Amino acid sequence: MTLAHTSALVLFVLTTGVGCDEFSDLSVQYFEQRVDHFGFHKRDTFRQKYLMSDKTFQAGGPIFFYCGGEMNVELHARQTGLMFTWAREFRALVVFAEHRYYGESLPYGDASFYGSERRGYLSTEQALADYAAILSHLKANHTGATKSEIVVWGAGYSGMLAVWMRVKYPHIAKLAYASSAPIGFYSGEVPCGKFLKAVTSVFRSESETCVQSIRRIWNVLQTMATSRDGMAHLADAFNTCQPVRGDNISNLFRWLKESFRTISMLDFPYETDLFGKLPAYPVKEACSKLWNHQQSDRDLMRAAHKAVSVLYNHTGEVVCYSLDNTLRNNAGWGFQACTELIMPVCSDGMDDMFNPKSWDLKKVQRKCLNKFGVWPDDQRLKRIYGGATGLATVDNIVVTNNQRDPWYDGGILTGTEGITVISIRNGAHGHDMRTPHEKDPISVTWARSRVRAVIRRTISPLLNYVLG
Amino acid sequence: MTLAHTSALVLFVLTTGVGCDEFSDLSVQYFEQRVDHFGFHKRDTFRQKYLMSDKTFQAGGPIFFYCGGEMNVELHARQTGLMFTWAREFRALVVFAEHRYYGESLPYGDASFYGSERRGYLSTEQALADYAAILSHLKANHTGATKSEIVVWGAGYSGMLAVWMRVKYPHIAKLAYASSAPIGFYSGEVPCGKFLKAVTSVFRSESETCVQSIRRIWNVLQTMATSRDGMAHLADAFNTCQPVRGDNISNLFRWLKESFRTISMLDFPYETDLFGKLPAYPVKEACSKLWNHQQSDRDLMRAAHKAVSVLYNHTGEVVCYSLDNTLRNNAGWGFQACTELIMPVCSDGMDDMFNPKSWDLKKVQRKCLNKFGVWPDDQRLKRIYGGATGLATVDNIVVTNNQRDPWYDGGILTGTEGITVISIRNGAHGHDMRTPHEKDPISVTWARSRVRAVIRRTISPLLNYVLG
Repeated sequence: MTLAHTSALVLFVLTTGVGCDEFSDLSVQYFEQRVDHFGFHKRDTFRQKYLMSDKTFQAGGPIFFYCGGEMNVELHARQTGLMFTWAREFRALVVFAEHRYYGESLPYGDASFYGSERRGYLSTEQALADYAAILSHLKANHTGATKSEIVVWGAGYSGMLAVWMRVKYPHIAKLAYASSAPIGFYSGEVPCGKFLKAVTSVFRSESETCVQSIRRIWNVLQTMATSRDGMAHLADAFNTCQPVRGDNISNLFRWLKESFRTISMLDFPYETDLFGKLPAYPVKEACSKLWNHQQSDRDLMRAAHKAVSVLYNHTGEVVCYSLDNTLRNNAGWGFQACTELIMPVCSDGMDDMFNPKSWDLKKVQRKCLNKFGVWPDDQRLKRIYGGATGLATVDNIVVTNNQRDPWYDGGILTGTEGITVISIRNGAHGHDMRTPHEKDPISVTWARSRVRAVIRRTISPLLNYVLG
Repeated sequence: MTLAHTSALVLFVLTTGVGCDEFSDLSVQYFEQRVDHFGFHKRDTFRQKYLMSDKTFQAGGPIFFYCGGEMNVELHARQTGLMFTWAREFRALVVFAEHRYYGESLPYGDASFYGSERRGYLSTEQALADYAAILSHLKANHTGATKSEIVVWGAGYSGMLAVWMRVKYPHIAKLAYASSAPIGFYSGEVPCGKFLKAVTSVFRSESETCVQSIRRIWNVLQTMATSRDGMAHLADAFNTCQPVRGDNISNLFRWLKESFRTISMLDFPYETDLFGKLPAYPVKEACSKLWNHQQSDRDLMRAAHKAVSVLYNHTGEVVCYSLDNTLRNNAGWGFQACTELIMPVCSDGMDDMFNPKSWDLKKVQRKCLNKFGVWPDDQRLKRIYGGATGLATVDNIVVTNNQRDPWYDGGILTGTEGITVISIRNGAHGHDMRTPHEKDPISVTWARSRVRAVIRRTISPLLNYVLG
């Protein structure tokens, strides 16, 4: 088994929390969707996948609808166990919809990313219109759902979509529940240094020595990259499938950086399932390999390898790490990061544990123009959705911001009359949406009870009657 | 001067109410707009026209933004005098934006309607996105407007757009003020017979004899259309520019029907300016020509001619009426009526004064497919905007429904905590948005004061401080 590195995905965890039963209650459905929802020049359609379970549904009960994000819909279902838990209580219909251009929901099959005429219909607004169409269809056609009220769910990018469903389709989505939704990072409202500083803070909370070790990694890597010997050692230390060369060393660099980012998001107090298992408290686990920041360069590289193996190779099944470019696997996200989901990221190497790197929008724009023929518009999201701070007159949104998650600063942090904001002190990325677990911190449990109260008071009295 | 008949436009009045000064304060502006706002396959742009006056604007004051509809933007400015009146009081920036594919704002110039790839970008959602882009631009670039709150205005179709701006861009449009906006007719929430019944009621309020005369017209027309003599007489009676023939008789039919519809909308108590002048109380005026419902067929046709001349030839300047097809002039509306703005209309000849005609969606669909290659979706508007009855959780909307307007039944008629609904007993179509006039019924004046109060309490306290 080889593992390629992943590019900046917001959330791609498999949880062990969802029992096999709940997941197997889901049936696979397809909906004939228009490729373009907003004009009339194009009549192409495609089959969009969604998963549905009506096992807990009672006529008049709500629809719990998960707004699929940047991955296969099954992955969402497996990490959002709370939806099943509450569906029993609320007598809800459970639906997970797959985001267009991800998983099986490819408008033009394998050719979906070839040619701007094909890939050009991957946009957040088209995705929201897909969800509106599926929901309208369900309300019209699913027995007992005519009067069902809709709660849209999502964590990470999916959480952003859930908020935007409420912004754009208030007549369809009665309430949005978003966990760890970093809108502010993508709408340009958060300074570029915040994210990697937050990643660093998660590691710092384990040990300052760990942070110092990681900070050393980048210089050592850079030095080793200048000699053949150094590169041979890197290949050995990181157990790469290919020799490390001038043309793939940057992939190793990026892979390491992203591994630390990912570990910092997934610091759950119990074992989870990603690509293979992830141990409980992975940050602590990774830092246990990096306890000595004064060891030799070679030893540091071996320690770094052990640290990231916590994420990718907890069970020891990975034979070697591939340095191949993984564009193909992340074509969707790569395109979205070049069009709407522009996240300014920078580091200074002082407040954070990464190598100093400034944010250069122009460079990104040139790169995107080159790659996809598109020009990233970093003002777009703020303009069309209001960002994280411009939603003063929007209501019926409940957001949870997990503090043990580097995405925290991008959340909607200020509540209003209509927006309930809940901070979760010890929660990791999307923590509250997972199946309740005995090891959950009290802050997570308490946040869930507050969200539950919001749902109960927002959905109609009729339903409360059904619930008794 | 010849006049072709117009197709079903919601509102196309020129008012005499706006003084020359206010109108001439407006400067013509253009904004570089994307042809497609929702995807990335197309990079075409076009110049969108808007009119602006900052004469009354003070830094921090609101932006009064008129959502242009199915006509040249100048026509909107001339019939929305209240915007200027209140701009003085509120220190507002005044903007009238032209709807894409109307007036000068043609994405592909004269070729805009040729080919589905060109005309396909005429949709309500693209139009709203245009307005959001202009408003974002103004807030970012117009001196003193950074913190300006935005009130979107519109009457008729424009009023529908104003409501939808609040639905889709709540972070941009703080408040929507819509007058005589017949959303329900286009979202399929109102029975097809309602509209022509309402047209009839306006005439009936003048005289039952008038209604009986008009009801006779259609049979007489049909009978005359069967003989060469009859058609010659029709050409004579209606003073048509061309001979009446088998291939244009249906245009005469439609033109007459639409004339009565239009007159019933524009029953203002003072002279207005349409294509040439329209007298005060045009319904009364038209009915004064149709006082005898028992006259001979030929005399009835002459009387009908005189009645519609109230609308088209009050000053006697029209030499003859053209029976040419007028598709070219109304290409935009024709397309919209085939895509999103599907209005079911029928008549039974009993409760209304028209010839019996059922509503046949399938026939319309076939016709539209033939004409534009599009398939009318009569569920679309309800699905994407919630219709007139599905906006329970939307707020900051004030709608006025003028009762002396056949479009009344299509309005948002039920208020909620967030939607203020004002019925205006004696108001004609869009009456309240016109410049206040000494002959306005008390109901119109009272409605304006209620709308004004909503605006004052919705825009920020900061502004109220400015206003003193």
